[in-house]
Amino acid sequence: MTEFIEALKMFFKADKYVEMSGIEIVEITDEKAVVAADVHERHFNANGCVQGGMLYTIADFAFAVLSNYLHPNTVTQNGQITYLRPAFTKRLTATAIETQRVGHCTVSEVIVRGEMGETLCVCHFNGFVKDVSKEEFVRKISEKK
Amino acid sequence: MTEFIEALKMFFKADKYVEMSGIEIVEITDEKAVVAADVHERHFNANGCVQGGMLYTIADFAFAVLSNYLHPNTVTQNGQITYLRPAFTKRLTATAIETQRVGHCTVSEVIVRGEMGETLCVCHFNGFVKDVSKEEFVRKISEKK
Amino acid sequence: MTEFIEALKMFFKADKYVEMSGIEIVEITDEKAVVAADVHERHFNANGCVQGGMLYTIADFAFAVLSNYLHPNTVTQNGQITYLRPAFTKRLTATAIETQRVGHCTVSEVIVRGEMGETLCVCHFNGFVKDVSKEEFVRKISEKK
Amino acid sequence: MTEFIEALKMFFKADKYVEMSGIEIVEITDEKAVVAADVHERHFNANGCVQGGMLYTIADFAFAVLSNYLHPNTVTQNGQITYLRPAFTKRLTATAIETQRVGHCTVSEVIVRGEMGETLCVCHFNGFVKDVSKEEFVRKISEKK
Repeated sequence: MTEFIEALKMFFKADKYVEMSGIEIVEITDEKAVVAADVHERHFNANGCVQGGMLYTIADFAFAVLSNYLHPNTVTQNGQITYLRPAFTKRLTATAIETQRVGHCTVSEVIVRGEMGETLCVCHFNGFVKDVSKEEFVRKISEKK
Repeated sequence: MTEFIEALKMFFKADKYVEMSGIEIVEITDEKAVVAADVHERHFNANGCVQGGMLYTIADFAFAVLSNYLHPNTVTQNGQITYLRPAFTKRLTATAIETQRVGHCTVSEVIVRGEMGETLCVCHFNGFVKDVSKEEFVRKISEKK
Repeated sequence: MTEFIEALKMFFKADKYVEMSGIEIVEITDEKAVVAADVHERHFNANGCVQGGMLYTIADFAFAVLSNYLHPNTVTQNGQITYLRPAFTKRLTATAIETQRVGHCTVSEVIVRGEMGETLCVCHFNGFVKDVSKEEFVRKISEKK
Repeated sequence: MTEFIEALKMFFKADKYVEMSGIEIVEITDEKAVVAADVHERHFNANGCVQGGMLYTIADFAFAVLSNYLHPNTVTQNGQITYLRPAFTKRLTATAIETQRVGHCTVSEVIVRGEMGETLCVCHFNGFVKDVSKEEFVRKISEKK
């Protein structure tokens, strides 16, 4: 399984928008995926707190990592984000947990937290599972390079 | 009104994440707000099309521009995005139109299109209207500088 | 086309929950579907206004009528409702308009209004289009009876 | 606390749409609220399975029970439902669990299951908490009668 996680991390290294946003994978397990980013001025909105698009992007990436780990290959169909507090924080952590997977459909919840563990946003994602085997997914990734 | 639009554009110049994402305001009228971005490699996901977070960010920004123009000051409470096609395109345009405003609540629809006018995503946003007058909003913006 | 509309109305007559809820089809055109219900005590929540589930049900039905008219056979994948006002009204009208249809995916907006035309809720639905021809859909409906 | 639960159950007895839909409260604890309904022909859609509006109604009611128990008085602002399977089942159970509560905002997840425990829908609700004390809520309820 470690080998697949390494292949997945390699695959997501090609995500340029995530790279520009400074988001990194922290943890991938069967239960959850955790991604994080240090907050810099480039993440700010006009009010000087973390921009709503950045908060969505880190949540969406946590979902992409989890769902492609659990069942490659998954594409996001629908994302929803509820903002609970202005994000004045130095670090963001997004944790994705799968709620349900039925057939081609997976539903996950992602919680984005600030440096003190305070919840900033609650997000829900629906993904379409293409049902590629992990072996096939790894092969496709290597061919891309 | 032109003066307020200028003040608003000045205000949103301070949005660093939008700036890094290369998104610009194209049009602000009583009916709609249009924002756009040329697509570069830095916007790509691991599959080489525009990343889902970038698509959300441009939609969210169109909503922020429209709702703060129509009724300053509005904060996003909830955003939802449905992806309809992989975004292989050289330019993105997001158009926000207000569906309803009742009391402190505003609901808008944003459509993100590619260079051929093809729809990539449909988004809906709920905002909380703080009911600041345009004059007061402009004054707050100038104080910030 | 009138023949298809008649077949569709006949089909939806079999919807028992809609019947119990007192919802009727008012209009079906290429642009919109309108359904309505007179409000009775059986529609009330514990606060004496129209229950949230009834408001969702009438909206969902407007979507079902429109999407199955435009492209039979469509099933709802996802529904979202935002409540804008407590629904103290004697009549409900729900109007569905399609926002986009791309491939197997259709997105519609439904607005639920009270007797004075005041907006009570804004709803969005995503449907999966199975792409059955109108002829085939009518044949399937007649076989059911 | 038992007294408050009894008052709450009494309050929700006045929900006529829930009564007509045959939904009953099964369990209220600090962790969750569970409501359920036996499925009859009156719950069917035109395809002979449980109608989407009924599935939303039972989910919304589970959320109303939980959120008004945890923090009276809560009103639903926004509900979202994802349908995972056609609901061919003889009994529905909806379980609400609170994901987060921050200030006036509460976010809950509700899962609707069929008689075999199979997941039919995943739902998310946002509520606005009015912050009435339990004592005051009980008093208001008694005054209503």
